[in-house]
Amino acid sequence: MKRLGKYSYRLGSPVHLVAYDSYVGKLEKEGPLGKWFKNYSNDEYFGQDTFEKAESFIQKEVINNVITNSKSLCSDIDFIFSGDLLNQCIGSSYGVRNLDMQHFGLYGACSTFAEGLILGSICIDGGFAKKTLAATSSHFCSSERQFRFPLEYGNQRPPSAQWTVTGSGCALLSSIPEKNNGPRILDFSPGAVWDMGVTDINNMGAAMAPAAVKTLSRYLKDTSSYVDDFDLILTGDLGVIGHDLMMRMLSEEGIFAGENLFDCGMMIFDSEKQDTHSGGSGCGCSASVMCGVILPQMEQKIYKNILYIATGALMSPMSTLQNESIPGIAHLVHIVS
Amino acid sequence: MKRLGKYSYRLGSPVHLVAYDSYVGKLEKEGPLGKWFKNYSNDEYFGQDTFEKAESFIQKEVINNVITNSKSLCSDIDFIFSGDLLNQCIGSSYGVRNLDMQHFGLYGACSTFAEGLILGSICIDGGFAKKTLAATSSHFCSSERQFRFPLEYGNQRPPSAQWTVTGSGCALLSSIPEKNNGPRILDFSPGAVWDMGVTDINNMGAAMAPAAVKTLSRYLKDTSSYVDDFDLILTGDLGVIGHDLMMRMLSEEGIFAGENLFDCGMMIFDSEKQDTHSGGSGCGCSASVMCGVILPQMEQKIYKNILYIATGALMSPMSTLQNESIPGIAHLVHIVS
Repeated sequence: MKRLGKYSYRLGSPVHLVAYDSYVGKLEKEGPLGKWFKNYSNDEYFGQDTFEKAESFIQKEVINNVITNSKSLCSDIDFIFSGDLLNQCIGSSYGVRNLDMQHFGLYGACSTFAEGLILGSICIDGGFAKKTLAATSSHFCSSERQFRFPLEYGNQRPPSAQWTVTGSGCALLSSIPEKNNGPRILDFSPGAVWDMGVTDINNMGAAMAPAAVKTLSRYLKDTSSYVDDFDLILTGDLGVIGHDLMMRMLSEEGIFAGENLFDCGMMIFDSEKQDTHSGGSGCGCSASVMCGVILPQMEQKIYKNILYIATGALMSPMSTLQNESIPGIAHLVHIVS
Repeated sequence: MKRLGKYSYRLGSPVHLVAYDSYVGKLEKEGPLGKWFKNYSNDEYFGQDTFEKAESFIQKEVINNVITNSKSLCSDIDFIFSGDLLNQCIGSSYGVRNLDMQHFGLYGACSTFAEGLILGSICIDGGFAKKTLAATSSHFCSSERQFRFPLEYGNQRPPSAQWTVTGSGCALLSSIPEKNNGPRILDFSPGAVWDMGVTDINNMGAAMAPAAVKTLSRYLKDTSSYVDDFDLILTGDLGVIGHDLMMRMLSEEGIFAGENLFDCGMMIFDSEKQDTHSGGSGCGCSASVMCGVILPQMEQKIYKNILYIATGALMSPMSTLQNESIPGIAHLVHIVS
């Protein structure tokens, strides 16, 4: 490990992303990235009794797929890092139960997938593990009733609102490459919790954008790099409004991001045609875009050098009712292939 | 780092617990460990508007106390690991906001404090950090309305129910000792998620005991050690019923734990006099007992060699309503002084 400046870390050896898989719902399959999503279902219950059980089910499925595809045994995998948006992270706890894999439960809202990649990389680089898994999930229907209203209520959503992605992503990290020049993690920069006083739960992009700007600008400074050095800078799920705000805030810091700054929440849906307002959100958003689309594209050398910045809005419905503002966090991972 | 068997890890160099602090409520102060708890309040709101804000407040207070007592600067501390029981872990997110410290949010229910000690130790041993913080909290009143009923309802609690501790604990981990022979972490063994089909949310001890037994027996096997080798084996918060069950399950595995097996949930309250039924529970239970009582006692050499096994019941009120059983997890940390 080499420390890069105050906030960023370079791994002693790259950590290889040797297997990954995603599982999404109908709307995600119908979106602009649909052709990349191999596993999907038109049934929002995914054959389960409840939306919450459906979410656990897809998380369990992607974990099992990744293990099977990588020809690993559960016993070869040292640790699993997982989390989700549901109260007490039940999507994950029920997703991993009785797998007999040493488990670290995470809560970083929509930043959780990057948190799992970072902690897994630390364990591998520190010699504590040879292989780790990172997994997250979200589900539109379980999130709506958790954070907003039951679907039956049919509430009107303002244009700034984001649409929680139904999806799950899982990646297997390994000290040993299984393919030549597959995607691998070089550096990371974990984020701090920033609260800029945004109180509108229908505008989470605005609450998260400052954290994304802070983490990105610190990483660029630490590594003396420029936004143009990367093929792609991919934020988690700021959506249209958060993305615009991030561009403006970056330019105020003298950082002019151009065509290579994208957002998973904007990519996964065609907001106009699919009526998803400001775009996608949720733990499963950037996890399924990364595992279903970007990592396979890196394998095909469509992208070779990316920054993945997963952002999380750390509020709960109760904190909102108590007039609390919404803190944000953003974790950055530098991946090359 | 040296791997001990399949499930346990020995740190390359011990990680030193150089500062720790706790903050508890009235009932905890009145309990058998009361004289050890220096920071307490008779006001269950701790001067805040709501119980949730009170919980964030005590977590923020212990973090600040630990930083101040250790004469560290926030900028000296590389990472903070924190979590709690509230929906979306708001106790922690609001507890650490704007501290400008790189943050990893955890969810491991009542096992969270040990999870933070383990991940912090990995970061330090792996060379990624010199100092890390681990913090957790719980609050009786915020937990009751989160998991059971609003207090105003005055529901009757069955004798197997546990009483959520109002308290918070925080410890500073460091690669460098600040005192001679202070408490330090030698080994750890993270747990897996086990679900033995227990469905009674008023008997969480029974749901967690199998996980504690599994983690302890694996650690003893991995390290070829015996229960008698330790001054104290301290489980998180199994309570009276879970503790009994653990003793019985251990004896079925040929492990006969004696007078050195204690439980934080049983120690913090006098269940008969204080009417707390099966004993204490909650993230703040074992964190405040460890940081307020056991680590100071290790400094005084009352204990020199302990196993701390924090246990978590990974359910939510919604999963219970959906007839799901309660998975359990237990993380073990070996501390000497």
